[in-house]
Amino acid sequence: MTFALPTYADVAAAADRIHGAAHRTPVMTSRTADAATGASFFFKCENLQRMGAFKFRGGFNALAQFDAAQKKAGVITFSSGNHAQAVALAARILGIPATIIMPTDAPAAKVAATKGYGARVVTYDRYSEDREEIGRKLAEKDGLTLIPPYNHPHVIAGQGTAAKELIEEVGPIDMLFAPVGGGGLLSGCALAARELAPACAIYGVEPAAGNDAQRSLREGKIIHIDTPKTIADGAQTQHIGDLTYAIMKREAADILTAADDELVEAMRFFAARMKIVVEPTGCLGFAAARKLGDAIEGKRIGVILSGGNVDMERFCSLLSA
Amino acid sequence: MTFALPTYADVAAAADRIHGAAHRTPVMTSRTADAATGASFFFKCENLQRMGAFKFRGGFNALAQFDAAQKKAGVITFSSGNHAQAVALAARILGIPATIIMPTDAPAAKVAATKGYGARVVTYDRYSEDREEIGRKLAEKDGLTLIPPYNHPHVIAGQGTAAKELIEEVGPIDMLFAPVGGGGLLSGCALAARELAPACAIYGVEPAAGNDAQRSLREGKIIHIDTPKTIADGAQTQHIGDLTYAIMKREAADILTAADDELVEAMRFFAARMKIVVEPTGCLGFAAARKLGDAIEGKRIGVILSGGNVDMERFCSLLSA
Repeated sequence: MTFALPTYADVAAAADRIHGAAHRTPVMTSRTADAATGASFFFKCENLQRMGAFKFRGGFNALAQFDAAQKKAGVITFSSGNHAQAVALAARILGIPATIIMPTDAPAAKVAATKGYGARVVTYDRYSEDREEIGRKLAEKDGLTLIPPYNHPHVIAGQGTAAKELIEEVGPIDMLFAPVGGGGLLSGCALAARELAPACAIYGVEPAAGNDAQRSLREGKIIHIDTPKTIADGAQTQHIGDLTYAIMKREAADILTAADDELVEAMRFFAARMKIVVEPTGCLGFAAARKLGDAIEGKRIGVILSGGNVDMERFCSLLSA
Repeated sequence: MTFALPTYADVAAAADRIHGAAHRTPVMTSRTADAATGASFFFKCENLQRMGAFKFRGGFNALAQFDAAQKKAGVITFSSGNHAQAVALAARILGIPATIIMPTDAPAAKVAATKGYGARVVTYDRYSEDREEIGRKLAEKDGLTLIPPYNHPHVIAGQGTAAKELIEEVGPIDMLFAPVGGGGLLSGCALAARELAPACAIYGVEPAAGNDAQRSLREGKIIHIDTPKTIADGAQTQHIGDLTYAIMKREAADILTAADDELVEAMRFFAARMKIVVEPTGCLGFAAARKLGDAIEGKRIGVILSGGNVDMERFCSLLSA
């Protein structure tokens, strides 16, 4: 199936659609971060979003547009992470049956959380089976609608509401930083930022171990890589999508990277100084921005803290390493 | 020196005085907490207050009332904890010289933070010297004004602004829970709650290891105890004050307790589910409330999360114990 690129009008429509279902998350500031950098940071706290990540915005926006037949048959998706829980929760709220394809070795807590939202979980062996193939087959057999994690216009438009809310609350910003996995968050936020703060320079940030989006934009085609080894588990995607690529190509100033130890330092800063828990992927934006030195001095900077779903054992083992 | 008991008018005046200097902290809710208890919880996030605790409210409110001579001579206080940093920060903002008396074995990070705000730190041996005596002598010698951590009408009135903001934001509540160390927070919040939600049942919560306030209210006189062994370092006071006692006696329904392991469980809940860092003392209110079973079902409950100043090493060691 091919889709047209979403536009800002789709983001605005998504905002109306998710109103009352998603949280309007707070924007936090930090005198410490500002004093250390000379910039003015505005942190959009999607770690405080429902189910702990921005993913709920896109999932809900997609499912809310199902017609009666789609609602009855149900939704299917594949994800071992936040998108699975986002779709499961949105489906429960909207009364839609949900099937989530997860690897057999997915963390028990995530499987339990997904089942807890009432979704059917189908497992597969991630080393010998292809989840997209399984998804397509199940979707065809049962007439389910597949909502992929990022390369879908309704998902992209939903994610963009995070930047829309941020800029509406704090006013124009000079720079925006958001994590990049498959590019749904960054491309959606880029649509909002370009409309609401036209001069804003938009940066995506990837883990240094998996800079496929950076390479894709620089080389002019979508680059595929092996699953990167990084603590930023929300950005371990192997490639971006054609829709997210097209928007990023048009709107992003650049894609930057942050190393795992820089993510840990940012995670420590958020917890120790700002008293909030941010998962490693959610730290990408600030970790990259703070390295830019003179380039951010005097600038008003929006940063999307994309999620807070890190279990406490892992959080503590990362901080003590 | 003897003081008259503060009233709600003093809390309202304090609110005007701290406006623009203190944060109006957010109130958070949790579907998970509500589903588990049948109550509706409203968490006032003083862990997100300036310097990481409610103490800034009282400190600023007290120092902002200094006359010209007091401002010139300076302020003095004794504290190894959040009150020290609150007075140091308020003094810096108001251009008042500050002297803080801290034990020689105070954590280096707290001494550094206090000095970082520009305060003079005087150390004493907590096993052989009396900090109140040292404070009085220094105050007399240099004409400094002593602002104690809790037993002062301006401090009490300032702390009460936390409950005032909470109730103004969410509407009337049926029950209010706040930690009790020396009682400044609870008594100030009681003044606000009695005015703004007259039927509200007001509960203070102490560490189980040091229930001097509970005993004081039940026995009808201020009880002194040895410094209790508890992870709730903000509530390791040996006795409440005559002002805080009088207000608590009049307004509190009861003083409850929570054990250290219950504080750890609450701390884990806040971090894992609500994505916020709350120090052990700040967990007292919720830890006690969630134990009440049927008594809280269907109730609208305000809980003051008093602070978030726990270093990450300690936080992780508590969670892994």
